[in-house]
Amino acid sequence: VIHYSSPTSAGAECIDPNCTWVEQWVHRAGPREKIYFKPEEVKAAIVTCGGLCPGLNDVIRQIVITLEIYGVKNIVGIPFGYRGFSDKGLAEMPLSRKVVQNIHLSGGSLLGVSRGGPSVSDIVTSMEERGINMLFVLGGNGTHAGANAIHDECCKRKLKVAVVGVPKTIDNDILLMDKTFGFDTAVEEAQRAINSAYIEAHSAYHGIGVVKLMGRSSGFIAMQSSLASGQVDICLIPEVPFNLHGPHGVLRHLKYLIETKGSAVVCVAEGAGQNLVEKTNATDASGNIVLGDIGVRIQQETKKYFKEIGIPADVKYIDPTYMIRACRANASDGILCTVLGQNAVHGAFAGYSGITVGICNTHYVYFPIPEVISHPREVDPNSRMWHRCLTSTGQPDFI
Amino acid sequence: VIHYSSPTSAGAECIDPNCTWVEQWVHRAGPREKIYFKPEEVKAAIVTCGGLCPGLNDVIRQIVITLEIYGVKNIVGIPFGYRGFSDKGLAEMPLSRKVVQNIHLSGGSLLGVSRGGPSVSDIVTSMEERGINMLFVLGGNGTHAGANAIHDECCKRKLKVAVVGVPKTIDNDILLMDKTFGFDTAVEEAQRAINSAYIEAHSAYHGIGVVKLMGRSSGFIAMQSSLASGQVDICLIPEVPFNLHGPHGVLRHLKYLIETKGSAVVCVAEGAGQNLVEKTNATDASGNIVLGDIGVRIQQETKKYFKEIGIPADVKYIDPTYMIRACRANASDGILCTVLGQNAVHGAFAGYSGITVGICNTHYVYFPIPEVISHPREVDPNSRMWHRCLTSTGQPDFI
Amino acid sequence: VIHYSSPTSAGAECIDPNCTWVEQWVHRAGPREKIYFKPEEVKAAIVTCGGLCPGLNDVIRQIVITLEIYGVKNIVGIPFGYRGFSDKGLAEMPLSRKVVQNIHLSGGSLLGVSRGGPSVSDIVTSMEERGINMLFVLGGNGTHAGANAIHDECCKRKLKVAVVGVPKTIDNDILLMDKTFGFDTAVEEAQRAINSAYIEAHSAYHGIGVVKLMGRSSGFIAMQSSLASGQVDICLIPEVPFNLHGPHGVLRHLKYLIETKGSAVVCVAEGAGQNLVEKTNATDASGNIVLGDIGVRIQQETKKYFKEIGIPADVKYIDPTYMIRACRANASDGILCTVLGQNAVHGAFAGYSGITVGICNTHYVYFPIPEVISHPREVDPNSRMWHRCLTSTGQPDFI
Amino acid sequence: VIHYSSPTSAGAECIDPNCTWVEQWVHRAGPREKIYFKPEEVKAAIVTCGGLCPGLNDVIRQIVITLEIYGVKNIVGIPFGYRGFSDKGLAEMPLSRKVVQNIHLSGGSLLGVSRGGPSVSDIVTSMEERGINMLFVLGGNGTHAGANAIHDECCKRKLKVAVVGVPKTIDNDILLMDKTFGFDTAVEEAQRAINSAYIEAHSAYHGIGVVKLMGRSSGFIAMQSSLASGQVDICLIPEVPFNLHGPHGVLRHLKYLIETKGSAVVCVAEGAGQNLVEKTNATDASGNIVLGDIGVRIQQETKKYFKEIGIPADVKYIDPTYMIRACRANASDGILCTVLGQNAVHGAFAGYSGITVGICNTHYVYFPIPEVISHPREVDPNSRMWHRCLTSTGQPDFI
Repeated sequence: VIHYSSPTSAGAECIDPNCTWVEQWVHRAGPREKIYFKPEEVKAAIVTCGGLCPGLNDVIRQIVITLEIYGVKNIVGIPFGYRGFSDKGLAEMPLSRKVVQNIHLSGGSLLGVSRGGPSVSDIVTSMEERGINMLFVLGGNGTHAGANAIHDECCKRKLKVAVVGVPKTIDNDILLMDKTFGFDTAVEEAQRAINSAYIEAHSAYHGIGVVKLMGRSSGFIAMQSSLASGQVDICLIPEVPFNLHGPHGVLRHLKYLIETKGSAVVCVAEGAGQNLVEKTNATDASGNIVLGDIGVRIQQETKKYFKEIGIPADVKYIDPTYMIRACRANASDGILCTVLGQNAVHGAFAGYSGITVGICNTHYVYFPIPEVISHPREVDPNSRMWHRCLTSTGQPDFI
Repeated sequence: VIHYSSPTSAGAECIDPNCTWVEQWVHRAGPREKIYFKPEEVKAAIVTCGGLCPGLNDVIRQIVITLEIYGVKNIVGIPFGYRGFSDKGLAEMPLSRKVVQNIHLSGGSLLGVSRGGPSVSDIVTSMEERGINMLFVLGGNGTHAGANAIHDECCKRKLKVAVVGVPKTIDNDILLMDKTFGFDTAVEEAQRAINSAYIEAHSAYHGIGVVKLMGRSSGFIAMQSSLASGQVDICLIPEVPFNLHGPHGVLRHLKYLIETKGSAVVCVAEGAGQNLVEKTNATDASGNIVLGDIGVRIQQETKKYFKEIGIPADVKYIDPTYMIRACRANASDGILCTVLGQNAVHGAFAGYSGITVGICNTHYVYFPIPEVISHPREVDPNSRMWHRCLTSTGQPDFI
Repeated sequence: VIHYSSPTSAGAECIDPNCTWVEQWVHRAGPREKIYFKPEEVKAAIVTCGGLCPGLNDVIRQIVITLEIYGVKNIVGIPFGYRGFSDKGLAEMPLSRKVVQNIHLSGGSLLGVSRGGPSVSDIVTSMEERGINMLFVLGGNGTHAGANAIHDECCKRKLKVAVVGVPKTIDNDILLMDKTFGFDTAVEEAQRAINSAYIEAHSAYHGIGVVKLMGRSSGFIAMQSSLASGQVDICLIPEVPFNLHGPHGVLRHLKYLIETKGSAVVCVAEGAGQNLVEKTNATDASGNIVLGDIGVRIQQETKKYFKEIGIPADVKYIDPTYMIRACRANASDGILCTVLGQNAVHGAFAGYSGITVGICNTHYVYFPIPEVISHPREVDPNSRMWHRCLTSTGQPDFI
Repeated sequence: VIHYSSPTSAGAECIDPNCTWVEQWVHRAGPREKIYFKPEEVKAAIVTCGGLCPGLNDVIRQIVITLEIYGVKNIVGIPFGYRGFSDKGLAEMPLSRKVVQNIHLSGGSLLGVSRGGPSVSDIVTSMEERGINMLFVLGGNGTHAGANAIHDECCKRKLKVAVVGVPKTIDNDILLMDKTFGFDTAVEEAQRAINSAYIEAHSAYHGIGVVKLMGRSSGFIAMQSSLASGQVDICLIPEVPFNLHGPHGVLRHLKYLIETKGSAVVCVAEGAGQNLVEKTNATDASGNIVLGDIGVRIQQETKKYFKEIGIPADVKYIDPTYMIRACRANASDGILCTVLGQNAVHGAFAGYSGITVGICNTHYVYFPIPEVISHPREVDPNSRMWHRCLTSTGQPDFI
């Protein structure tokens, strides 16, 4: 259950009368009567970190437009994530309503993204040199940890700087939030891949289509996409362990499906079944462990299994990740991004720092960054939604 | 604030400890331990009434699939709305998982829709003759009033019949519900029309694009579509009165936009400004008043106005209504329809009748029909969402 | 039969050995060994006239890119058609690869379009003042007549100016050309409207869907769209007369379709059946007669007819014109536009003037403007393609 | 130059007066005055072989519809390619207008496809047992070789059977044909992958997007897709050899692009650069050699190269093959399929056997199968189209 302070109260009033502590950290998002910065003294910067996610341009656009409505004239984009603070070859990009007018019509990030970057201290020094006193950070958990550290460092240096995050995770795995931008678009675009897998499987003799979707530690995209499509027979997510082999394994169920239905579609989240693939000890520039490829693993094991049992099977594997990430936001995400962008600016002007903005129980709120990044949100295997997914796929337990 | 009974309690326990009455009428949707019907004795019928709405086939499909999971074998579709109960030329359509497997991939209704139909008494008599003891009704307010009357008549005749509604209104105007199926798809598809209007307006010398969207008494589609697109300059909805002429009128603002931006886009809900169009006293077969055409009116008045003031203007009018209604559901609506369909069947098997199923405050619940159909839900002109829309369009008051 | 000079010959050699005159006027398009202009002395201008058509931005983009490859640095866009030559308030738009890089990803025209404009003499005077010596004109028959007159005036004034047209007509009605850009996209997008009409008609009790498509004097879009969809029962085009009423009329056939199939879809070109609608004596700024609205006429007559004969019918009318025109070009048109744009520049540099570029019998060629604009190309009612369309719809003669 | 007999002549008259031999083997497609089969004695079968290709369902649909127009009542589908003739577990699928009405709205093949199958002798014996005297075969070169052998075997056994092929190759690599169905759709859908690669590359720091497209021995899809997109920097096809390493290699050019533009997009046909990947001696069930994966190879070598030269590069690899193959046909392919399907039936009824139907120089014709399958059609590296592609990408020779 989410508690939040009343929308209009300056102070703190929670809807749950038994709750006394909540109002201290979650505030309803929106414009405030008093603003903390004089618009003409603001230099605002926007930075986008990590991988692509539909809606980045929508958020950038709305932050710029809302800043202009407040009267801010000095707005810049930091190119290619935090790296843009240190790389001398990368110039700030001046931003205005004119520049951003139609950027939401294409995917990607106008500013460019990247992983990693300079130290927090170097970033803050760079901000001081550039005179930046409002920083909007779009990124995932790691990026938010960085944003919070920047906020702390600014406090330490007694800089009057507002650092406001907008959570960007296509996996929809941020704690306490109903959903994050890009997720809805991802589920929509995943339909295309699942339907292709279904068509390929259905049109082939003993066809099996395997689709790998995003979801490093959370299966939301795989679960929702399976549910939406109505064409998936097996949905595998990181939160629910499964065996490939053995009497209750995925492969035995595939055999059953081929014998009864003639074809099957598997939808697997990239982070599922990591016990079944070889560990890579590599990490990417964001510090994320490089996952073993469970999609390819399932494809190979399936081929091998059907060969061994002497039943022909035609396995097709689809990885639509980049084609999903690079999409422009759909209408639903467009609205989400618009409101998040507006509220990010409202928050900064109200003097919040070290916060991030999100939608929680249908309301837009500000969270202190640490509250939402301690660990990724996960699918609850006992939730109604997962059970609806199981009902829809008709799959058994694979343990 | 929505109150509801605890999900798992057989009895009634509301989240709000101060609330004593609520649990009597809103129940959490979902499967129950005890079922009221023996599956082998069930003859279930599905009927779709009113106009088209994306997702009808998804709901039909899921009702059929869930009924089959319960073990029901006798499932039929009533063709063309309530009319199918009386028209001897229209045969029941046998339904099964095989029949409905891929119907969600196209728009429309497998069963056909229509407005009007026979009397409640005739419908119930027809149901008795056919042996129908579960009736799933997909339709709007009028259809639900009919469903409730059917439920009452069944009670009066002491028939053991479950009548369960699924609210179908593309306008998203059902009381107490977060959203109704088809709405999200409508907003998505409306983007295409708005973007066309923007392109036409922007590419023309003094171009003005006018898009009329659905919304007889509620402006949700127009509001959300405007917000999502970021390309609308003026959004007009039934809930907010406006003048066309006069110093604060829409036309004066259009003149301002043409002079400053060179082009403008207007998005108007069909039910907006009904004081500005000639009253038609006609009603359609559903009993709805035939609205005057505000879109055409705005187009004509705009042309006339600019001619009078001697400024050239190139006005283009787009009415995408049928192209939006006939779409298949997008992924988000696909999930909504799936869960609504499952819960409609759960409700019937649990012995509920005279109820309708909906999503309320992110939870799926059963409502007694009368609670939700007293009047249409409307956009609150003081709500944050409408203000976000105004911020996005930059429009003034038009009074 | 189309005659053309051999692709590779410097001189003139027609494929038809009996043909002696052809090579004098049709030349294979492409780069030439000798160029007539020094790139550094060129000031090139691009102008787009008339209504929108998918692909305008693709052609603009490719002309600019190809000019830059030749070494031209001075490239401008004339805003809003010929009007941009005379309207002092409209500034030339500087064009470069950077400016046009991604304009093909959205519909419309970067430069803006309009109808009408100043006199030929004024245009040429304006060109002299601006120093324009290459003019690329994108437009229809009227625009090309203007382009040719500009070419003649330039000759008269002994100006060394190349005037090159690129035919822009979504109707695909230019003489001698296999197809014009935008047509393929229009047929593709029309599917969406036809399918909506089919879904609406099919889901309604006695549903009739009427779709009006572009085609002032030629039915190519209506014919090809009907053929592609496989969902049209009656296709009406300007080239084939028809009656609405009477024993062989369209309405009688609709009655037959409703009685046998239960629904029907009509696809009508805007210029069809102009004898059946009231003459408007109005003309638009391009000098085109404003057509009576045959789509609305069919809708009204159909409603009236079915009311009179006492059979219920549910008629839905869709006019997707602006939503089709404003689309971006599909891949096939993208290639066509790319090659047309490249060849327009090759032609100008080779010293051609008063020509237009097109694809003819699968080859790209230059035509003298007067050869292609004498009258619109039309569907031959005795052609195989029209007969295939009739086979597909199953419609009889309506006379 | 393509020669063909005059459309209307019963006999043989070529357009080229110097040509005496052509008319003997290429006939204009279309209905004939005399038909060779009595419709009531026909049992027609349709079979689809090989991999998926957009438009299969359109052709199946149109063959069935046209057969019904001729009066044929006995129409069946052979499931899963030639395998369906021998596999006792696979039943013939009865086909009618009702069954096929809307199958063109989804991709895949209603009948299922597969590679390989029984011997020609077994197929003909099965056809005799089933009473099939018209066989429509949709497939590629191998399948057509089979169809021709079936035709020969039928002749040998003196069976009055018409065997008619419809070339199905998404690669567009059939000799003498302007284009084959599915190709246009493939190029259209490939845009989505290329644009994703562009967005990913452009939004990343030193981003490189690699897209692998279909094209075992011909680069038509890669070439046309690159040309259409305007976003590809390097297009690699089987017909044009290239080096990865060395002073003129692809990698050196990528370095140049990263240094000058900051990002790059590579589009590679699956059959390109087979000298650069390890030979697999494996063949698939169709007898095609399993190609080494040039896409993955380029990805790996690019990563390695940039690591070695100490320049960061972010390489993303997209293989959209199955998502392209499983698409439904676009409008242009829809028309092509419709006409091919109609003409396949016309040909069979006219008594042709051992032929295949195609579009050649904008006309629909019948070819004797052996004429078109001797080897795949290829991109001519000296053609205008390839040079246009080079102009568009700006790429040098890579040798």
